[in-house]
Amino acid sequence: MAARVGIVMGSDSDWPKIQGVAAALDEFGVEYEARVMSAHRTPDAVREYASGAVERGLQVIVAAAGGAAHLAGVIAAHTTLPVIGIPVVTEFMGGLDSLLSTVQMPGDVPVAAVAAGAGGPRNAGLLAVQILALSDPALAARLVEFKRQLAEKVAAKNASFQATLGR
Amino acid sequence: MAARVGIVMGSDSDWPKIQGVAAALDEFGVEYEARVMSAHRTPDAVREYASGAVERGLQVIVAAAGGAAHLAGVIAAHTTLPVIGIPVVTEFMGGLDSLLSTVQMPGDVPVAAVAAGAGGPRNAGLLAVQILALSDPALAARLVEFKRQLAEKVAAKNASFQATLGR
Amino acid sequence: MAARVGIVMGSDSDWPKIQGVAAALDEFGVEYEARVMSAHRTPDAVREYASGAVERGLQVIVAAAGGAAHLAGVIAAHTTLPVIGIPVVTEFMGGLDSLLSTVQMPGDVPVAAVAAGAGGPRNAGLLAVQILALSDPALAARLVEFKRQLAEKVAAKNASFQATLGR
Amino acid sequence: MAARVGIVMGSDSDWPKIQGVAAALDEFGVEYEARVMSAHRTPDAVREYASGAVERGLQVIVAAAGGAAHLAGVIAAHTTLPVIGIPVVTEFMGGLDSLLSTVQMPGDVPVAAVAAGAGGPRNAGLLAVQILALSDPALAARLVEFKRQLAEKVAAKNASFQATLGR
Amino acid sequence: MAARVGIVMGSDSDWPKIQGVAAALDEFGVEYEARVMSAHRTPDAVREYASGAVERGLQVIVAAAGGAAHLAGVIAAHTTLPVIGIPVVTEFMGGLDSLLSTVQMPGDVPVAAVAAGAGGPRNAGLLAVQILALSDPALAARLVEFKRQLAEKVAAKNASFQATLGR
Amino acid sequence: MAARVGIVMGSDSDWPKIQGVAAALDEFGVEYEARVMSAHRTPDAVREYASGAVERGLQVIVAAAGGAAHLAGVIAAHTTLPVIGIPVVTEFMGGLDSLLSTVQMPGDVPVAAVAAGAGGPRNAGLLAVQILALSDPALAARLVEFKRQLAEKVAAKNASFQATLGR
Amino acid sequence: MAARVGIVMGSDSDWPKIQGVAAALDEFGVEYEARVMSAHRTPDAVREYASGAVERGLQVIVAAAGGAAHLAGVIAAHTTLPVIGIPVVTEFMGGLDSLLSTVQMPGDVPVAAVAAGAGGPRNAGLLAVQILALSDPALAARLVEFKRQLAEKVAAKNASFQATLGR
Amino acid sequence: MAARVGIVMGSDSDWPKIQGVAAALDEFGVEYEARVMSAHRTPDAVREYASGAVERGLQVIVAAAGGAAHLAGVIAAHTTLPVIGIPVVTEFMGGLDSLLSTVQMPGDVPVAAVAAGAGGPRNAGLLAVQILALSDPALAARLVEFKRQLAEKVAAKNASFQATLGR
Repeated sequence: MAARVGIVMGSDSDWPKIQGVAAALDEFGVEYEARVMSAHRTPDAVREYASGAVERGLQVIVAAAGGAAHLAGVIAAHTTLPVIGIPVVTEFMGGLDSLLSTVQMPGDVPVAAVAAGAGGPRNAGLLAVQILALSDPALAARLVEFKRQLAEKVAAKNASFQATLGR
Repeated sequence: MAARVGIVMGSDSDWPKIQGVAAALDEFGVEYEARVMSAHRTPDAVREYASGAVERGLQVIVAAAGGAAHLAGVIAAHTTLPVIGIPVVTEFMGGLDSLLSTVQMPGDVPVAAVAAGAGGPRNAGLLAVQILALSDPALAARLVEFKRQLAEKVAAKNASFQATLGR
Repeated sequence: MAARVGIVMGSDSDWPKIQGVAAALDEFGVEYEARVMSAHRTPDAVREYASGAVERGLQVIVAAAGGAAHLAGVIAAHTTLPVIGIPVVTEFMGGLDSLLSTVQMPGDVPVAAVAAGAGGPRNAGLLAVQILALSDPALAARLVEFKRQLAEKVAAKNASFQATLGR
Repeated sequence: MAARVGIVMGSDSDWPKIQGVAAALDEFGVEYEARVMSAHRTPDAVREYASGAVERGLQVIVAAAGGAAHLAGVIAAHTTLPVIGIPVVTEFMGGLDSLLSTVQMPGDVPVAAVAAGAGGPRNAGLLAVQILALSDPALAARLVEFKRQLAEKVAAKNASFQATLGR
Repeated sequence: MAARVGIVMGSDSDWPKIQGVAAALDEFGVEYEARVMSAHRTPDAVREYASGAVERGLQVIVAAAGGAAHLAGVIAAHTTLPVIGIPVVTEFMGGLDSLLSTVQMPGDVPVAAVAAGAGGPRNAGLLAVQILALSDPALAARLVEFKRQLAEKVAAKNASFQATLGR
Repeated sequence: MAARVGIVMGSDSDWPKIQGVAAALDEFGVEYEARVMSAHRTPDAVREYASGAVERGLQVIVAAAGGAAHLAGVIAAHTTLPVIGIPVVTEFMGGLDSLLSTVQMPGDVPVAAVAAGAGGPRNAGLLAVQILALSDPALAARLVEFKRQLAEKVAAKNASFQATLGR
Repeated sequence: MAARVGIVMGSDSDWPKIQGVAAALDEFGVEYEARVMSAHRTPDAVREYASGAVERGLQVIVAAAGGAAHLAGVIAAHTTLPVIGIPVVTEFMGGLDSLLSTVQMPGDVPVAAVAAGAGGPRNAGLLAVQILALSDPALAARLVEFKRQLAEKVAAKNASFQATLGR
Repeated sequence: MAARVGIVMGSDSDWPKIQGVAAALDEFGVEYEARVMSAHRTPDAVREYASGAVERGLQVIVAAAGGAAHLAGVIAAHTTLPVIGIPVVTEFMGGLDSLLSTVQMPGDVPVAAVAAGAGGPRNAGLLAVQILALSDPALAARLVEFKRQLAEKVAAKNASFQATLGR
């Protein structure tokens, strides 16, 4: 099956930090592709990828970058698809540079930013699933089930925590 | 026609600050509804609204709040729809509190954050359009046209700027 | 004896970071209960817990969460009891996200915030004791004694420090 | 009737900024007193006030200060009563200095911090009411009523907003 | 004479904020051109401009943008010329978003950042002059003279200040 | 000989972090005393120490504290001696809380702040020496010699660095 | 009488912002001189001024600058006198740039920083007085009197505030 | 061959952190020299170095410093050559102090700032190459080749990443 989500990252060293995107998509059986490309080092590859994304059947693009993180914004400049930006954490103020470079987009060219930190990549994947589920009833049903299980898991953790506490 | 996008805000005083959402949706002919409700003052109204959103036919929810901005996160807790969060600018560090409270969501419960500042509300509206366009070819076509006009407008501004410069 | 203080945390992994709350309450012999629940993953459990807190005899609720820390605020939305918020430290700017999400509450729905960092959890416990002591003379007497010992301990540390210095 | 809440501020010029404390207490019929005293300019007055607070019948102290805001912390050093700190907004990073100086207290000496910004003073007053209500059933009943009206007011605002929208 | 410096800005509304660039270049008689183009709204125009800059005889490009300021970085991606980035001040933390998005570039693609604030645009112009002066002895001589006059002007200001003081 | 400089710190655990104060004073043969006392845990000890400092012959007080660092400010409230504040680094934003709590003092009650970080304690000691040297010609002569040696040491480091480089 | 305190500022436009220094010195009858000179525009004038300060009889130098505020640090590099740095408030994060550039000095070259904000200049003047008072008993006596009056003034303000309150 | 680029750093301990400058210059065969000198500890050495730089044939100066990083600014005060500033990362807010002290220069005295973090030093070197290449066609040709290879390297990384993914 063709990829519905494109994951792009500025450097292959970002992959371990953002595998949560892929894990979330795998969990829901959503096909994706992943590419290493850089807004600064391979701007033409980024432009081609973003410009051709609709034609190739992609529906959502997830872009991860750190520092002066221009990748999501540059992709958004070249496509009408929803673009989700992951601010990769740096040593500079915990990734404040990545966050602001990703989220503070000017009007007319939206990027959907998720958190700088542990939950960001997973949420980028889940947000893509939520978007795709709008026209995919099976996926929508899975999301409802996912949300139910989420509550159950926390309840189970609480139960085992109560046992540990012995109160 | 039924609303496809729900706009919720913590206070009616936020409306002038976020009208860009409605303006963008109007521009694309996307039906929306707007509600005043507060994660802290009317938590039950928020829960009911978010829980019933799918059933009522909504496809995207846009939530705007400032300070310890919990509205988008609380709505995301109660729905499987994509939730877009607008950090309303405060006098505290230009809205850093609103931004971090909106974007730094834990894994499993995504919020799509847009900018704290002028472009944020407009982009929230456009992001909703981009999401809906995935299953609405007419909307998708309009987005392509919008992007073309965007470039034309800037080109026109540049032309008139050159004339002013007289160079 | 029934719990007078409820401690809630977003994840069981937060427990080691906030055990200072329990330690302080134990020190003063104040009964408490501890629960794992999440404003985002188990919003209904949080609502039920907060809404039923008065009836169950709780007098103070201490809520600990990190990142877009909505837990204390959401609990405060559902109860008239005093709610103490602990910003759990994250890797992002030392927990500035947790702190601002906890403390920058809008008017009408107070949260009492303590420090992001080492002293926060202990102070959350002590603040609960101070509140309960207003109507519990035995507890009030213990607080006076605690404060006296506090000064003595620092004086003792100074004395042994002087000995080490040998000046 | 004797004051149950003491409001202290570093300068009389702070009074207009923090009148929300008094307004909230007036709303609930809670007696208070207000004093101008400074941790830096009148440290002895602060010490005497804080040390004698229990004896004079006070149950909660609300302290407001800006910049290197030491007032709440110094009062907390001299009393076992709950101390609520209001970070008065400065021109420096929207009051980040006031906020951190108020909230980042070391262990053993708690201060309950409220927001730097519009909602802070009101919430300081309400928090004091919540604390006093624990041993004052009439006050507790009023708080329940207050919370109900809060939801009604927002619902009414929403209704009139819907009318304005005409949707 | 052909332009040696290209000034690009994301919006014509930035022109009044960055006229210091042009003023500095005029002062030194350095020819420049100014263009309105946006990394997000007209990415192709930016690419063409940057890619063709060397051929058209430009030697330095000055790019000014605010918020998630990607303009300088995107231009640097497409040219080997030195690129100077001006972070245009926003209402968000005084332009911290603009500054970080401009200066925190990844290795291999440099941007020379100047200040967010009053001196930034003028210094961007002067930096361009300093760069051009390396291969233009007349310009180099003017810079020496400029630096001498700079000291004289401050000395004159000090003298007239002394007179005012009357000390 | 009697101590001319008093070093106070909030906790004995701060001593290793601020030994640079003592080292600098030892280097110049300036007598000092060091005390553990806390603005929050032993406020009376702090007041007595600060109030009696002049009479006991102290000329400068150096106070080190972290977080909501009130120690220097409280000491300054009780003495007319120059007070030097050292912001002890915390895990919160690298000590921004300590820095702002120390330096942002209101008018009328000065604290001389040094850096949050490695150089701060040493500079606190040197600043004390500079102050004492104003009325101590031998100390003043030593400072001149110290400054000369400082330059020599850096020159020597540069020389050995050149050797390493082999250029 | 010869000046004992030298006030230097980077621009004559800073004078209105820092007149509190002069006002404080006038209040105590301490002679001062004021100079406009810039670490960046007139580095030689700064060096000469700082290097010759001891010989000319100065005992304290107060330096005020904003942005990348290098003035105090550069003066400290050229003198063994105590140097007090005033971070002049800018529009960038309320003067955080000025504050950090002034206070974060490396070891061996101290600068005594006061607040970025209203109280800073006045406190710079008072700190200079405190330093001079160590060898000037008349000044020391005045400081004691000043501190007494400070407390009286706040007490008077409190009294008139009580009258206004009518409580 | 004589050095065309001068690299100066405040301490020899900075060398390992900024070797990327030298590596980049070596890659392009650009001669450089490296010196340890401090704006605060050896101000005269800095002045002499900067004042004599033109005469000695230098064309660009790269200055690296941390904390209240005054080195680049002080050098810029004494030369008409382009000065590139590297903010050396500190433990304080990830180097925000270094960044602001370097980049927020007042008008008339430019410093070209690069990133605080991993890419900064390499980009400082490359920026120097870009500047020199304006009058050195061989260097300019190498830069074109470098940019081509940059894109190839990322493409190769992407290819091997695809292989790893096995998609």
